[in-house]
Amino acid sequence: MQIAAKEIAHLLGGVLEGDGEALVDHPGKIEEGGAGALTFLANPKYETFAYDTPASVLLAHTDFTPARPVAASALIKVNDVYDAVRVLLGKFNNTMQPSNGISERASVHPFTTLGKGVAVGIFSIVEEESKIGDGTALLPQVYVGKNVEIGRDCIFYPGVKIYDGCKIGDRCVLHANVVIGSDGFGFASQPDGRYSKIPQIGNVVLEDDVEIGANTTIDRATLGSTIIRKGVKLDNLVMVAHNVEIGENTVVAAQAGFAGSTKIGRQCRIGGQAGFVGHITVADGTQVQAQSGVAASVKEPGTALYGSPALPYNNYLRSYAIFKKLPEVFKKIIALEKKLHQK
Amino acid sequence: MQIAAKEIAHLLGGVLEGDGEALVDHPGKIEEGGAGALTFLANPKYETFAYDTPASVLLAHTDFTPARPVAASALIKVNDVYDAVRVLLGKFNNTMQPSNGISERASVHPFTTLGKGVAVGIFSIVEEESKIGDGTALLPQVYVGKNVEIGRDCIFYPGVKIYDGCKIGDRCVLHANVVIGSDGFGFASQPDGRYSKIPQIGNVVLEDDVEIGANTTIDRATLGSTIIRKGVKLDNLVMVAHNVEIGENTVVAAQAGFAGSTKIGRQCRIGGQAGFVGHITVADGTQVQAQSGVAASVKEPGTALYGSPALPYNNYLRSYAIFKKLPEVFKKIIALEKKLHQK
Amino acid sequence: MQIAAKEIAHLLGGVLEGDGEALVDHPGKIEEGGAGALTFLANPKYETFAYDTPASVLLAHTDFTPARPVAASALIKVNDVYDAVRVLLGKFNNTMQPSNGISERASVHPFTTLGKGVAVGIFSIVEEESKIGDGTALLPQVYVGKNVEIGRDCIFYPGVKIYDGCKIGDRCVLHANVVIGSDGFGFASQPDGRYSKIPQIGNVVLEDDVEIGANTTIDRATLGSTIIRKGVKLDNLVMVAHNVEIGENTVVAAQAGFAGSTKIGRQCRIGGQAGFVGHITVADGTQVQAQSGVAASVKEPGTALYGSPALPYNNYLRSYAIFKKLPEVFKKIIALEKKLHQK
Repeated sequence: MQIAAKEIAHLLGGVLEGDGEALVDHPGKIEEGGAGALTFLANPKYETFAYDTPASVLLAHTDFTPARPVAASALIKVNDVYDAVRVLLGKFNNTMQPSNGISERASVHPFTTLGKGVAVGIFSIVEEESKIGDGTALLPQVYVGKNVEIGRDCIFYPGVKIYDGCKIGDRCVLHANVVIGSDGFGFASQPDGRYSKIPQIGNVVLEDDVEIGANTTIDRATLGSTIIRKGVKLDNLVMVAHNVEIGENTVVAAQAGFAGSTKIGRQCRIGGQAGFVGHITVADGTQVQAQSGVAASVKEPGTALYGSPALPYNNYLRSYAIFKKLPEVFKKIIALEKKLHQK
Repeated sequence: MQIAAKEIAHLLGGVLEGDGEALVDHPGKIEEGGAGALTFLANPKYETFAYDTPASVLLAHTDFTPARPVAASALIKVNDVYDAVRVLLGKFNNTMQPSNGISERASVHPFTTLGKGVAVGIFSIVEEESKIGDGTALLPQVYVGKNVEIGRDCIFYPGVKIYDGCKIGDRCVLHANVVIGSDGFGFASQPDGRYSKIPQIGNVVLEDDVEIGANTTIDRATLGSTIIRKGVKLDNLVMVAHNVEIGENTVVAAQAGFAGSTKIGRQCRIGGQAGFVGHITVADGTQVQAQSGVAASVKEPGTALYGSPALPYNNYLRSYAIFKKLPEVFKKIIALEKKLHQK
Repeated sequence: MQIAAKEIAHLLGGVLEGDGEALVDHPGKIEEGGAGALTFLANPKYETFAYDTPASVLLAHTDFTPARPVAASALIKVNDVYDAVRVLLGKFNNTMQPSNGISERASVHPFTTLGKGVAVGIFSIVEEESKIGDGTALLPQVYVGKNVEIGRDCIFYPGVKIYDGCKIGDRCVLHANVVIGSDGFGFASQPDGRYSKIPQIGNVVLEDDVEIGANTTIDRATLGSTIIRKGVKLDNLVMVAHNVEIGENTVVAAQAGFAGSTKIGRQCRIGGQAGFVGHITVADGTQVQAQSGVAASVKEPGTALYGSPALPYNNYLRSYAIFKKLPEVFKKIIALEKKLHQK
């Protein structure tokens, strides 16, 4: 795909300077982009590259006043560089477009309901009584169990596994080897030390516009549903236990984990490798630093937390600042003891 | 399935109050259950729901004396509510019952030994010289390598991968995308900075009644076996390295990890995201708090640990209590220094 | 395979004592090995086993002078026991040798380029425009997307998924259910609280001699490439985010994670469950203790780090030593205050 600078300016509602006919056919990083590249200056610390980048078109913020001429043939100024980049990347995006239609080498049970334009890839399986909405694509080697409901315009990458009875909303994206609906970790300890399995007969519900990273696992509820609300984004290798609920538009970085029955609010931001104990409630807008361990309910919306067990963010940093100098603090105390003893 | 209150009371050895003919056809949460629901009061903090729940049957503890009449048609009192629920959930459980028989679209090598009633799902593979015991079900898209031995009445969910030479006991449950027998992480550093692979020629042995959560990985031994003893339960995304041994009836929460050659005792309880260094021995009944890092052998059975590196549980809490107020502690010291200087 | 002690001594350039005709047919642990076993004494704490092991051949270090006669028929002394073991294990290694050739039940697009001796296992898929070098083996149930380039003599275990456009070097080993090229976790927050996906149009590049553990995930770059340099070894369940670069011969233990755009140097050693924030640069030879959180760039090569956020290794240990006795330190301070008040 080739696109001219003037078309880009028009598309973004930006202001064009330089050659409106300059053509680009791929996006590039500002320090690397060559002829035909569309590049951008979003972070001021890269400004020096702006003057020398041999890219054809440079996007920058409305405020950007070049100290000297830029090398690019055209400069386009926009109000929000990141958002402009997002829009343009979508134009160049052509990864993983699934073929339409049902592969002859897929296995689709006759008692299923498939919408218009549904794609089911090679060696994928859709079990009986499942429903798939219009325009949804299952790439190869996907497994969809019985009585599963999937909305429209979803994309499931290779190796996704959906257990029986789970429900997926519209426009959900599930990356490779995601597991939805595996049994919750529920066992009752017996007098002889063994653990008996507690049957897990609930399901998992993903609402609309949920995206889930590769190899993430979401367990089914013991009873009822594990619920991932509208617009939630989970990164790779995240663990969501049985009966958890994650609120609308909450984002969770990689390798974080949520123990059973915990309820996370809306618009939270959870750092990588953070953990949550079970059976707590976390307020809307909570921000949790990476590797923190949240061990109690969070009542105040917008709280920022850090540490394991987690403290208010600034308190943790202040305590940790003293932790760093504990050896010298300890020396001070010994010196004080000595001095006082001498008096 | 429909079942009457009096039958439930009989099944559980409970005491029935109210309408013995009340029918239930599904279990439900106490705050949600409607007509036909069987619900339960296990945690006293939900007691208020007990009076209003429109469920048909309510299970409660023998000690429960309603402060006012319950809304349910029947109340059944039992000695152990959780265990009663476990038994009843099993009655209603109908998820993931694999079809019997070998799918025509599975690939089963002719030189294999399959017991009675073995199921092998679509696109699953069983390689040569492997043995599968009576009643074991491989769901779709499972891989079983060469010379693998699997006991009876196991269930492997879609995407499970078993490398060559591993041994699985009876009644084991492996959730989706579990990997058993991948190479241990063994490399010998060379003078030029490169790492040469140390061949990993051991295997993995799972004894009977082991359950393993989705996307968990257990590496084969360099030499000998990585061993998961009878009754062990591992949650999702757990890492077990080469030559580790995990003792009978130990339970491990999600995302915990065990480095090479470490030996964990029986009846231990390991929290989520906890880590163990390699080459240590951990006594029976050890309890490790989530996110802790166990860096040394644990000799005393029943020890509780917390922190990274892990300390005795109460010691960690006591130290952390002071850590929280380190900034004010530090101020005290500065004040003392000043005061002493003035004298 | 049977091999005589004298042949082993010759192969390793070692010194033989005892019966050069003693035959071995398998390696064994020193505390277990029986007749026909080749065993080794690498760690002095196992020396007592050396005298009693009924193995046929015992390998030991040149310095080893038996205090009393060893039970083995032959003793071979070498300069580097571990390296000798590595060489010998390779001799006995016969796990997972893939069948040659393209399975009739694989799906290989006609517009692909396959080198000599390429194996593609049952239910594996190679999409259009992909290239696979000589001698590379895809075991069953592997997925290779469009426009993927794979070098020679690689081995991909069952369930590996490679997204479109990624590039893999020579002699790479990818364990079961590894995901390469899933989308980076990039979302732009919108005024109404929703997150819009930023298209991820870059790829992942693995250079030569990379080994990746089971269920590890490496995300594609937003733009450009996520790069894993020559000789890197990643353990299981590791997370590598978009645009990360990991330098030559760096080794990373299980469950560690790297946030977006971070650049790790060469010859680093990263412990299990360690985490790195995004957009930092970590010097060559950095060593990071397990569970540490690296929150800032590391400039000095060879730095050792520990803690979350990470401190210089010894500083963390010194501070943690005082942390352990904080309760008594606090008592000292209270005592000082009291005493000073009395004066």
